[in-house]
Amino acid sequence: MAQKITSAKPVDSLLVARFSGISTFMRLPYVPDGTGVDIGIVGVPFDFPTNRGGARHGPSQVRDMSRLIRRFPSSGGESPFDQCAIADIGDAPFNPLDPQSAVEHTSAFFSELESRGITPVACGGDHAATYLVLRGIVRDEPIGFVQFDSHPDTSEELYGDRYNHGTLLTRGVEEGLIDPKRTISVGLRGTRFSRHDRDFNIAHGMRVIDFDEFEKLGRAGVIAEIRRVVGDRPCYVTFDIDALDSAFVPGTGAPEPGGLTMRDAQVVLRGLEGLDIVGADMCEVSPPLDPQGITALNGANLLFELLCITAPAVRRRKAKGNEGR
Amino acid sequence: MAQKITSAKPVDSLLVARFSGISTFMRLPYVPDGTGVDIGIVGVPFDFPTNRGGARHGPSQVRDMSRLIRRFPSSGGESPFDQCAIADIGDAPFNPLDPQSAVEHTSAFFSELESRGITPVACGGDHAATYLVLRGIVRDEPIGFVQFDSHPDTSEELYGDRYNHGTLLTRGVEEGLIDPKRTISVGLRGTRFSRHDRDFNIAHGMRVIDFDEFEKLGRAGVIAEIRRVVGDRPCYVTFDIDALDSAFVPGTGAPEPGGLTMRDAQVVLRGLEGLDIVGADMCEVSPPLDPQGITALNGANLLFELLCITAPAVRRRKAKGNEGR
Amino acid sequence: MAQKITSAKPVDSLLVARFSGISTFMRLPYVPDGTGVDIGIVGVPFDFPTNRGGARHGPSQVRDMSRLIRRFPSSGGESPFDQCAIADIGDAPFNPLDPQSAVEHTSAFFSELESRGITPVACGGDHAATYLVLRGIVRDEPIGFVQFDSHPDTSEELYGDRYNHGTLLTRGVEEGLIDPKRTISVGLRGTRFSRHDRDFNIAHGMRVIDFDEFEKLGRAGVIAEIRRVVGDRPCYVTFDIDALDSAFVPGTGAPEPGGLTMRDAQVVLRGLEGLDIVGADMCEVSPPLDPQGITALNGANLLFELLCITAPAVRRRKAKGNEGR
Amino acid sequence: MAQKITSAKPVDSLLVARFSGISTFMRLPYVPDGTGVDIGIVGVPFDFPTNRGGARHGPSQVRDMSRLIRRFPSSGGESPFDQCAIADIGDAPFNPLDPQSAVEHTSAFFSELESRGITPVACGGDHAATYLVLRGIVRDEPIGFVQFDSHPDTSEELYGDRYNHGTLLTRGVEEGLIDPKRTISVGLRGTRFSRHDRDFNIAHGMRVIDFDEFEKLGRAGVIAEIRRVVGDRPCYVTFDIDALDSAFVPGTGAPEPGGLTMRDAQVVLRGLEGLDIVGADMCEVSPPLDPQGITALNGANLLFELLCITAPAVRRRKAKGNEGR
Amino acid sequence: MAQKITSAKPVDSLLVARFSGISTFMRLPYVPDGTGVDIGIVGVPFDFPTNRGGARHGPSQVRDMSRLIRRFPSSGGESPFDQCAIADIGDAPFNPLDPQSAVEHTSAFFSELESRGITPVACGGDHAATYLVLRGIVRDEPIGFVQFDSHPDTSEELYGDRYNHGTLLTRGVEEGLIDPKRTISVGLRGTRFSRHDRDFNIAHGMRVIDFDEFEKLGRAGVIAEIRRVVGDRPCYVTFDIDALDSAFVPGTGAPEPGGLTMRDAQVVLRGLEGLDIVGADMCEVSPPLDPQGITALNGANLLFELLCITAPAVRRRKAKGNEGR
Amino acid sequence: MAQKITSAKPVDSLLVARFSGISTFMRLPYVPDGTGVDIGIVGVPFDFPTNRGGARHGPSQVRDMSRLIRRFPSSGGESPFDQCAIADIGDAPFNPLDPQSAVEHTSAFFSELESRGITPVACGGDHAATYLVLRGIVRDEPIGFVQFDSHPDTSEELYGDRYNHGTLLTRGVEEGLIDPKRTISVGLRGTRFSRHDRDFNIAHGMRVIDFDEFEKLGRAGVIAEIRRVVGDRPCYVTFDIDALDSAFVPGTGAPEPGGLTMRDAQVVLRGLEGLDIVGADMCEVSPPLDPQGITALNGANLLFELLCITAPAVRRRKAKGNEGR
Repeated sequence: MAQKITSAKPVDSLLVARFSGISTFMRLPYVPDGTGVDIGIVGVPFDFPTNRGGARHGPSQVRDMSRLIRRFPSSGGESPFDQCAIADIGDAPFNPLDPQSAVEHTSAFFSELESRGITPVACGGDHAATYLVLRGIVRDEPIGFVQFDSHPDTSEELYGDRYNHGTLLTRGVEEGLIDPKRTISVGLRGTRFSRHDRDFNIAHGMRVIDFDEFEKLGRAGVIAEIRRVVGDRPCYVTFDIDALDSAFVPGTGAPEPGGLTMRDAQVVLRGLEGLDIVGADMCEVSPPLDPQGITALNGANLLFELLCITAPAVRRRKAKGNEGR
Repeated sequence: MAQKITSAKPVDSLLVARFSGISTFMRLPYVPDGTGVDIGIVGVPFDFPTNRGGARHGPSQVRDMSRLIRRFPSSGGESPFDQCAIADIGDAPFNPLDPQSAVEHTSAFFSELESRGITPVACGGDHAATYLVLRGIVRDEPIGFVQFDSHPDTSEELYGDRYNHGTLLTRGVEEGLIDPKRTISVGLRGTRFSRHDRDFNIAHGMRVIDFDEFEKLGRAGVIAEIRRVVGDRPCYVTFDIDALDSAFVPGTGAPEPGGLTMRDAQVVLRGLEGLDIVGADMCEVSPPLDPQGITALNGANLLFELLCITAPAVRRRKAKGNEGR
Repeated sequence: MAQKITSAKPVDSLLVARFSGISTFMRLPYVPDGTGVDIGIVGVPFDFPTNRGGARHGPSQVRDMSRLIRRFPSSGGESPFDQCAIADIGDAPFNPLDPQSAVEHTSAFFSELESRGITPVACGGDHAATYLVLRGIVRDEPIGFVQFDSHPDTSEELYGDRYNHGTLLTRGVEEGLIDPKRTISVGLRGTRFSRHDRDFNIAHGMRVIDFDEFEKLGRAGVIAEIRRVVGDRPCYVTFDIDALDSAFVPGTGAPEPGGLTMRDAQVVLRGLEGLDIVGADMCEVSPPLDPQGITALNGANLLFELLCITAPAVRRRKAKGNEGR
Repeated sequence: MAQKITSAKPVDSLLVARFSGISTFMRLPYVPDGTGVDIGIVGVPFDFPTNRGGARHGPSQVRDMSRLIRRFPSSGGESPFDQCAIADIGDAPFNPLDPQSAVEHTSAFFSELESRGITPVACGGDHAATYLVLRGIVRDEPIGFVQFDSHPDTSEELYGDRYNHGTLLTRGVEEGLIDPKRTISVGLRGTRFSRHDRDFNIAHGMRVIDFDEFEKLGRAGVIAEIRRVVGDRPCYVTFDIDALDSAFVPGTGAPEPGGLTMRDAQVVLRGLEGLDIVGADMCEVSPPLDPQGITALNGANLLFELLCITAPAVRRRKAKGNEGR
Repeated sequence: MAQKITSAKPVDSLLVARFSGISTFMRLPYVPDGTGVDIGIVGVPFDFPTNRGGARHGPSQVRDMSRLIRRFPSSGGESPFDQCAIADIGDAPFNPLDPQSAVEHTSAFFSELESRGITPVACGGDHAATYLVLRGIVRDEPIGFVQFDSHPDTSEELYGDRYNHGTLLTRGVEEGLIDPKRTISVGLRGTRFSRHDRDFNIAHGMRVIDFDEFEKLGRAGVIAEIRRVVGDRPCYVTFDIDALDSAFVPGTGAPEPGGLTMRDAQVVLRGLEGLDIVGADMCEVSPPLDPQGITALNGANLLFELLCITAPAVRRRKAKGNEGR
Repeated sequence: MAQKITSAKPVDSLLVARFSGISTFMRLPYVPDGTGVDIGIVGVPFDFPTNRGGARHGPSQVRDMSRLIRRFPSSGGESPFDQCAIADIGDAPFNPLDPQSAVEHTSAFFSELESRGITPVACGGDHAATYLVLRGIVRDEPIGFVQFDSHPDTSEELYGDRYNHGTLLTRGVEEGLIDPKRTISVGLRGTRFSRHDRDFNIAHGMRVIDFDEFEKLGRAGVIAEIRRVVGDRPCYVTFDIDALDSAFVPGTGAPEPGGLTMRDAQVVLRGLEGLDIVGADMCEVSPPLDPQGITALNGANLLFELLCITAPAVRRRKAKGNEGR
């Protein structure tokens, strides 16, 4: 592999005005061939037209709104950009007229990242993206799985189709991508298709913290429970932006009121530092439904929080000689 | 009365895509003649042009956004659609150029529902709708009244007019529709027209929980207090959507910051199960002020919560042989 | 077949305020079983996620904005609603996760309409809808075809897919649905994928009036040319709303500046009265891109113009004993 | 009458930035008592809730967008502000809960203007405003009337009501406010409630130039015809902004495609210089339907054009010693 | 000084409909010369184009949305309008093409207010406004300073420029306008330009309550800490609206998620009654980013809260014979 | 100079879905160092806060909307991308807090392009951008100048400032950048600051075709007149997007009704093929005022038209051995 780009940093908004230059995630260098990259921020621009869509435009708007992100975390701690080489490596491939082909092609893209030691932090696209990333990066054994979401995504199929945003966990478990005993879903709520919506979770021993329990446990309790379930082995973190209360996400396909605030999300994500994160994503920002972009801005901030907990994991793995894993 | 439509259910969004078909409340059958219906969801499409209006378009947008509602409550409990026959029975009549005539004509519509044993769950329109529903359905004695609102609606008159969204409780008490001793107003706040805004409530022994007290009592305390005031006799529940903090309701005429979250509303409404609800409504969604419809989506969710607490009451009354009451 | 509904008319907006009642096309009766209907206005709610989409929500918003349509044409001529029985017959079925299945299922819906003597006036959805309607209603021989559009829709395939909004004419000719010699495309313009974009048209003897020629001919010349090409045998008229200049259609997926005004469209469509129209549609209104709905309002007006030229054709065929054809 | 304010001029946008200061029409002085004013620009902030409304917020948004208007006409001719004393004199009174009372109270406001020699240029509000202005300012005999509109406004009544935006010409003729023989309606088009929509015009000898004829005559022909009909005696000019094609006015209640461009409107209005205009208005801008305000900007430009043709008439009358008439 | 205007009050929205009349802050009299005014609400309409801007249009939209404010506080306590003479005194001067000149000219405007005994409550404009107000009103010694903000505003310079919204506190301390020991910044959070973002605060002994600590202390604790730091000597309160969580302020230039709710802001501001406030402001509302105006409505409510705590201070000073200070 | 990138082409939207990948102008390669580039599309992201602004965000939104542009012109002629090497070369530098420094720094950027033989096609930013480009690229003698605009931009200064969007032509002539005798301004209209707005043009012998004359001449006449004035020596073409009628450009700072349609613009620009264009730009797209982006889409189409007439000129110069000039 070629020379590292460890000196690459986001454009400094104190020197170059934010409205200036092309839009890349966090104003990072655009390195489509991934050379020298430890963490690749990747767009996964697609969505299935099941209802209100538009998440395929998500990466573009999140890139644009991420101009507002600065280089250091709110805590004043170390910048993720100082911990490893992070770059915008472009978008995963996708054929919008043959979505099912993504099961092979898009996954193959992530598989290549994995083989080159690049840890993906993905930006959807709809929540089917997560399955495709997992399929690409999980090799030997199922990994732990932390899901922030208002919906369980545990359908057997949707309209007779097996690969979509509603079957993420079903396929993930079925194909040995995620370990149900090390899987936890946080923030579930909202009206339900059936009383059996969570039977799959129960049957496989997954842990569910619905929003009622979220409030009971409090943020600290939720953090502790996630850490207990996932443990210290490799895991993946996915944040479906509709985990947030609909007031924070006018621009998403299936908004549900009565959920997490951005503050909840930030505090809980920060509490996950130390997990052995091997991949992460933020999904379901739909620009046409929020053209001014507050939803995308929240998404960009969540992506930054994901970077802040993924970068230390990558550095630890690199210190041990395990690039990317 | 003709054959019941108890087998009628909302269109199943797992079988028929949500963007498909005409818009009815909750994707329910449209039964304008009300035959076989236990609970009729009714649009009350009007608003008085006192300030920022547009609530007359509310039923249309709430119908559209209610495509996102599923059949079962968040708790996983029984679906209201399995407890009694629920249908969209269309809109109450209204002459926009002679609003005062509504006092007779619109009320007569609800009176007919009452006589046919159909319990109304109404969707405004502005808050004057509630008065018209009450006038139609209250027969023998004043009923209990639970109001979620940021404004007291206790003016003697507004611009010299006696029937409008600002005089709801005044007329309700005066005409023996609501029992002030069994009336409770929750969520009041915001700048006030005068220091005497709540004198009417005090004078008539109504209970007011303004938002300062709401925070002090907590949701459980508020629920307990509502149940104490209203007791187990017949009551009505009205939810003016501006009870919510303005961040949740960009699309309403008189938004007030510093109020309930959707989560507050959901938890408190769920806590009212068991009351003998004989009618309910959700009002003041104004589509032109929020064309993308997050306000209407919140309204649709609140309508669903109202159904969830009204359906058991209807079933109980039917079990006792008291249809609709 | 059951009793005709010839007395059914749109709700009269002089008697019932426009914001009142459920949304059906033109405030017409909703007759999902099509009994007694001569012309069925049908929603075709789907779109393929090739770029900016959302046309699957088109029928819903066009229904809502069509509340503004009145019963008589601008000319003061006879109302289409007095010429034959017209109703909203709901939406054609569609599986959003298996778009290719529409080739059979959605077509079958239109085939049934045809067999029952109901002439369809469809509201997309994206422009692939037209192919599905044609496939359903064309029986014995290819029909004439009048296309208003900014794009030729003559690709062999798109991303390897053969059935989509870009291959409408290719498949139509290939499968003997439309007669290329009696096909005319009006309004083409805009940047092009290749210099060969119109080779298909030329090769098959189709007539193309691009916008340069449109201006040269003038509206009267365009009308004459359409009538000459199509002749007096059965034909179909499709209006892709992006035929209009982008200033008129902010809410469409692929807007092209420099095109028809609504006035152009109205005048030319009115000039087609007398053609033997056996079906028609208006497509590509995307509500998320224009939530306030001017695009949908224009679409609703075009649907009305299509009714005004289709109704006389239906009446003529009925007078000859040929229901629906 | 007190000292003239003839030296008052709009704030100069070359000296004081446009975003600065309170919003008055054209950045003019705010002179609510009208002292020294020759032409008073008046807001008439009301609308009847017949369908999509919001025109009652029109004066506020038009004031704000009129910050973009400069002091001289496009032609480089004399500024209206140099021809007579023009000011923003505030809004006419209106009780939104007793619209019928406006027939007396709002008219009385305009009647007082007339008696003080102030010529009104009004900004609606819905089109009922025009009737109220006319009722206030017409004294001895009916005046000429130039109407730009897509709708005839000649209903006998609407929902049983006699005074509203749909009965403007009916009441105007009936009450001797306008002379039907000197009345001309320009731009009519769009779907119609009945085939008899224009019978009233015909019966009373009014001249109608619908949009078909508008195109045939051309702008010069239309100007000539207006001048012929109205002659040189006193007349009033009203511009319902829905006379413009809907592409120019997303923010109006009943937009109709296929109408005038702003260029058409500007050229025709400029052609009316020389008429003896005794009042004018621009109506039906609805801010909630176009919050960014292009509709209001067009409205502000039309108000300026109306000033440009009214100011010379006022100056001529003053020169003859006839203040205000 | 001329006669007081102590009887002047906002237009009563129970008598004159809110959509009526020109827009002034809180519907107060417009008194540009400030005669008889104790508290002048002043627009400071400018912003520097550093990123997403538009705050220069803030005063206009806040004036418009403040039509929704009523005369009495939520608590039912005394109206600020009954405690002293409050008026809209227009906008401070500003040259948009020579922002640096504002350091003299705009400050001079506030200096004159100070000399005339008028206490300013300003409405930005961007946060540089605060510096200009301070420069105008601080005379003898540095004053206490209460800042609500998500950003520290303690840069040495920005793009080489010393006077802008990012250097407010730096210049304030440097020039002896604010006393760092009596300065407290509340609500800081969000990604940071560097780990040294708060070194300036620390070095000068300023108190910072970032949002982590805000939650730990609770509102009561925050209030107590502000009161402790500021004490009973003169102080200034500035509210940068981005202190609020981004869900409450879609219309601001640099929104940060995870911050104060409007309820937090209201409760804390109300807790500051009793401080010797000599000036206050609310800044950073950007209308183009939120044309429907919920951000501005929140801003208007905050301005009202600032009035409610400033008016008693002014009254106390007047009682002691210290006009304006 | 390094190897040419002549094989570089826009991403083919028939192969890679339009919503995919980072946003560059026309989906072209991003070549910030300009190596091998003949025509560099450059963002010039700044605007002066004189009134409604936001044009500094223009390049970002135009890049995004230009995903809709295809590779070949509407005429089916040769693609500009086949005529010379075209790339997105990023944004010119700009310090938003020291706009005057742009006179040196931003100009220097364009000067370097010129010295490297790269012809700029710029995307503003506000219209001051044009001056900076000219200052950078004009070397030996003043060049011809074709301006599409609604405003003359011939102020001596604005608010005392000499370098801004209102003084473009004044400085251009004064500093010998443009030859007034070979300068033509097309589309002027709208209200005017003074009767002397065009004196500068007249005094220097510039040709002005205001919109009245535009209509009289017709498009062909306008083309002929531009060609006559400019001749065959080097010239520059600038298109201020407010030359278009305000209906086409809701997202610009100073929209003027009554102007060019997009069709007018396209036809006239196409008529300029053959001119010796040495630079071009399109300015004044303001994204915050049109977040859905129809204005930017029109801007992207105009940029493409500019490429179509600039590319042949570059090719001709290269054929003659004059790179870039």
